[in-house]
Amino acid sequence: MRSAIPMGPEPEYEKVVSGYQTFRSDDPFVCEWGGVLPEVDIAYESWGELSAVRDNVVLLHTGLSASSHARSHAQNTHPGWWEEFIGPELAIDTDRFHVICTNLLGGCYGSTGPSSTNPATGKPWATDFPIITVRDMLKAQMLLLDHLGIERLHASVGASLGGMQSLMAAALAPERVGRFVSISAAVCSHPQSIAMRFVQRQAVMADPDWREGHYYGESFPYRGLRVAREIGTLTYRSGPEWMERFGRQRVKDDMPRLDEDFQVESYLAYQGDKFCLQYDPNSYLYISKAMDLFDVAEGEGGSPRDGGAPAVRLVDVRAPALVIGVTSDILFPVWEQRELAKLLEDVGVDVTYLELDSPYGHDTFLIERDSVGEAVRAHLEA
Amino acid sequence: MRSAIPMGPEPEYEKVVSGYQTFRSDDPFVCEWGGVLPEVDIAYESWGELSAVRDNVVLLHTGLSASSHARSHAQNTHPGWWEEFIGPELAIDTDRFHVICTNLLGGCYGSTGPSSTNPATGKPWATDFPIITVRDMLKAQMLLLDHLGIERLHASVGASLGGMQSLMAAALAPERVGRFVSISAAVCSHPQSIAMRFVQRQAVMADPDWREGHYYGESFPYRGLRVAREIGTLTYRSGPEWMERFGRQRVKDDMPRLDEDFQVESYLAYQGDKFCLQYDPNSYLYISKAMDLFDVAEGEGGSPRDGGAPAVRLVDVRAPALVIGVTSDILFPVWEQRELAKLLEDVGVDVTYLELDSPYGHDTFLIERDSVGEAVRAHLEA
Repeated sequence: MRSAIPMGPEPEYEKVVSGYQTFRSDDPFVCEWGGVLPEVDIAYESWGELSAVRDNVVLLHTGLSASSHARSHAQNTHPGWWEEFIGPELAIDTDRFHVICTNLLGGCYGSTGPSSTNPATGKPWATDFPIITVRDMLKAQMLLLDHLGIERLHASVGASLGGMQSLMAAALAPERVGRFVSISAAVCSHPQSIAMRFVQRQAVMADPDWREGHYYGESFPYRGLRVAREIGTLTYRSGPEWMERFGRQRVKDDMPRLDEDFQVESYLAYQGDKFCLQYDPNSYLYISKAMDLFDVAEGEGGSPRDGGAPAVRLVDVRAPALVIGVTSDILFPVWEQRELAKLLEDVGVDVTYLELDSPYGHDTFLIERDSVGEAVRAHLEA
Repeated sequence: MRSAIPMGPEPEYEKVVSGYQTFRSDDPFVCEWGGVLPEVDIAYESWGELSAVRDNVVLLHTGLSASSHARSHAQNTHPGWWEEFIGPELAIDTDRFHVICTNLLGGCYGSTGPSSTNPATGKPWATDFPIITVRDMLKAQMLLLDHLGIERLHASVGASLGGMQSLMAAALAPERVGRFVSISAAVCSHPQSIAMRFVQRQAVMADPDWREGHYYGESFPYRGLRVAREIGTLTYRSGPEWMERFGRQRVKDDMPRLDEDFQVESYLAYQGDKFCLQYDPNSYLYISKAMDLFDVAEGEGGSPRDGGAPAVRLVDVRAPALVIGVTSDILFPVWEQRELAKLLEDVGVDVTYLELDSPYGHDTFLIERDSVGEAVRAHLEA
């Protein structure tokens, strides 16, 4: 008797990315928390020439919602999310480096995730998909590197969740990582960041169309995901920029409305509207959860671990680190950046620490090409 | 064809408060933005004896979700929200002062609000209720003071939205306010605070059970309100306390869950569960919106104003002010407290400014009896 409920719009997330390559590993993939994926697809894009001795690879890790499309190329000419940071003579110089960026395990942009088909049932995994961790994301990326014959990375680079992955790479496989960059990330997720992601997940799961995750082929929880992205955007940007950009300006100077009214609200609503058709709600839940579970200080995850593998330890990190923090970041506050830099120094890592007084909050890494880009370039070329 | 949708729990907000008195004004109440309420009920509670010359009144203003029940009394023996601040020899000494606390216009605890009956239709106002402002809240409180024969307040006191009302009283009716206290409030709502409330309203309005506000007598949007309160709680408390209190502790040390899992999540869910049965979702929308519209720096609201009344101006404030800010407050950041204190000083107000380094964020005023209470006592008794 659901006929009274509109189906809602069709998801568009399959349209967002194209031009990626896919590697399939047919070996069972045992997740850190014990779930098993019978096969794993890893979608990826790359830029620049791989050197003959395969020693010039920069593995770039994405944040929660970004795809592998970090930079335009012949197979997909749309600008990527780090378009101005990757290219000849840019922060990651494609005249020198071969850059690889993968779509996240658990995502919806070509790598295996909750919207992928479960071979055992022929239906989407939905919430039968196993809990995954940042460590699992790294394990999947290492399978791709093995497949490509890349033994050692020149560098591992990322911001936000990408920074978590970058640090994880350096801790999980110290012999394979030459140096790494962690921008606006952390050594573990602290309770305020967990809380900020929890309320986003709650917004999705409170939507009746979420249906405990089994919404594929039916109306999907776009309303909940829209609210989640509005909350997310609130944590990605910050007060200083909004003061300047929006102030207390309203969209129209007439009777106030309970819905969008101030310009900052219109901005949040636009971000929510755009995103909710481009991302799979279940992927949002799983990847957001993986961020909460991230803890290299105490060891990723908890017991039981896969096959009794030892915990990932910060003390194993060897690679020189570039840690960048932003004073206006409310999601990964600057004190967490100082904590990460200090903990790395305490275990003997060569750390370059840069603190930026940008007004763009957590999203600074997407915007400040001069400061962020130059620091990354210097660290990669040192 | 809604039979497939569960009705959900019954709201309990009528049970939360009792023992208040109600004053009804039968004159049409013209709201700042032009709406008209044919009649207005103002529910209130009071403590301490009114002096013979009626010159010892402290008007206490509530935040968004609190009721007039600030302190227990014979008609309602449950502890109030400022139980340890009001009483003989406490911060607001009831041996000296007659304390009055009203329920907010627009609320659901006895004063006229969206759940009240619209006399024109015999049904609840719902979203036909007019847009209200903090100035309207004050105008309603002034009607009550007129009714009680109280010409002048010894003091106007409040925190959060209560602090906005307190400042509004001093600007709107400078001849009636002897001194005032603004704790964790602001001279106007800045875009980050507006954004934090917007996403809460969006969570309510995204719930299909909200029905554009016309849910009375049907299932009500408790899921959306629960998420809204979870977000609200995130903005009321802060990282430092949670680091100490919850850290990264999980509720159970087994397989992680997409739903409540870490202890901080369980805390947020508990706050959401409790609140969503005790507050009317439409009241949440209207009062939250009134907070966004608050602007004493530029004049409350915008045009058209009721009957061409002049804007409320900060320059009209005469009463000595106590302004209190908290460094860990993310909803009304401490820079907003400094801004308010400075702007008041700039217009010649005698300002006492106190900045607290408490870990409790925006909610510090509910907790820190020693620091907050002592400052309030000193200001009231000076």
